[in-house]
Amino acid sequence: MRRKLLVLACCALFLAVPSLAQESMPQSKDEAALRAADAQWEKAAAARDLSRTVDFYANDAVMMEPSAPAFVGKAAIRAQWQKEMSDKAYTLKWSATAAGGSGDLGYTRGRYEASYTNEKGVPVTEKGKYLVLWKKVGNDWNVDTEIYNADAPPSPRSDARSGKQ
Amino acid sequence: MRRKLLVLACCALFLAVPSLAQESMPQSKDEAALRAADAQWEKAAAARDLSRTVDFYANDAVMMEPSAPAFVGKAAIRAQWQKEMSDKAYTLKWSATAAGGSGDLGYTRGRYEASYTNEKGVPVTEKGKYLVLWKKVGNDWNVDTEIYNADAPPSPRSDARSGKQ
Repeated sequence: MRRKLLVLACCALFLAVPSLAQESMPQSKDEAALRAADAQWEKAAAARDLSRTVDFYANDAVMMEPSAPAFVGKAAIRAQWQKEMSDKAYTLKWSATAAGGSGDLGYTRGRYEASYTNEKGVPVTEKGKYLVLWKKVGNDWNVDTEIYNADAPPSPRSDARSGKQ
Repeated sequence: MRRKLLVLACCALFLAVPSLAQESMPQSKDEAALRAADAQWEKAAAARDLSRTVDFYANDAVMMEPSAPAFVGKAAIRAQWQKEMSDKAYTLKWSATAAGGSGDLGYTRGRYEASYTNEKGVPVTEKGKYLVLWKKVGNDWNVDTEIYNADAPPSPRSDARSGKQ
């Protein structure tokens, strides 16, 4: 009886371990670090914290925004963030849906939602997607290239459209 | 005299080698392979070769175009390329300005110029920038994520605007 139980227990373990491994899909150390960096960066940007937001970029980083030539280098990137954060309608949030790293290269990919004042002075909201390339310097992941685009033209911001919310 | 020449020759070599290395900036094997893959992919797309263009994508690739939700997977990506290549005004060229790889991750970054028929039926030209994330499978680099955006709203195509060219 004891032997039978032992055999059954071994079979159960044999069957359980691979399925557990598949289900939990453990993150690599790099993936976890990149997701954490992406989330901390988002927190800084959502809180309109210019210095902390710009700190995430490498000195020679490239920021690629729609309808503008690329912003190259930390000074140009800082000036652009400053301009955007000084907009009264500014709100920004994003969330990574995928991340990974290999050696000194990493990426995060995800979705964002932003509000801003458009060229006609109307507060609008835009939803879209992004890709960020990260480079490891020492133990830190820095933003090397950032690019995003919208899913559709922006729509008037819901809280500006009616008094219901 | 012979010894003096030898010393001089050694000094010259010592001085020359680092400056040569700095000036030529030799590409890594990965960078060269990624630039070559990017250029071959561009050649296929510029030639309207649908199959060869789509062959570069990984099965679970993500294509992020402006004004559309992401196209996920080879079938959706193929359908979108087919739609774009069947546009009479279709032209596309691009060129990488930076590339690099580490382990099984790589990237290319660059500039593109595209022509297409806009929603009003007018042939327009657009210039912009892109970032592509590549993943190595065996010896091949496959496109994992592709994203781009324009520098400015598109302008009427020059050859459609007047009969001068």
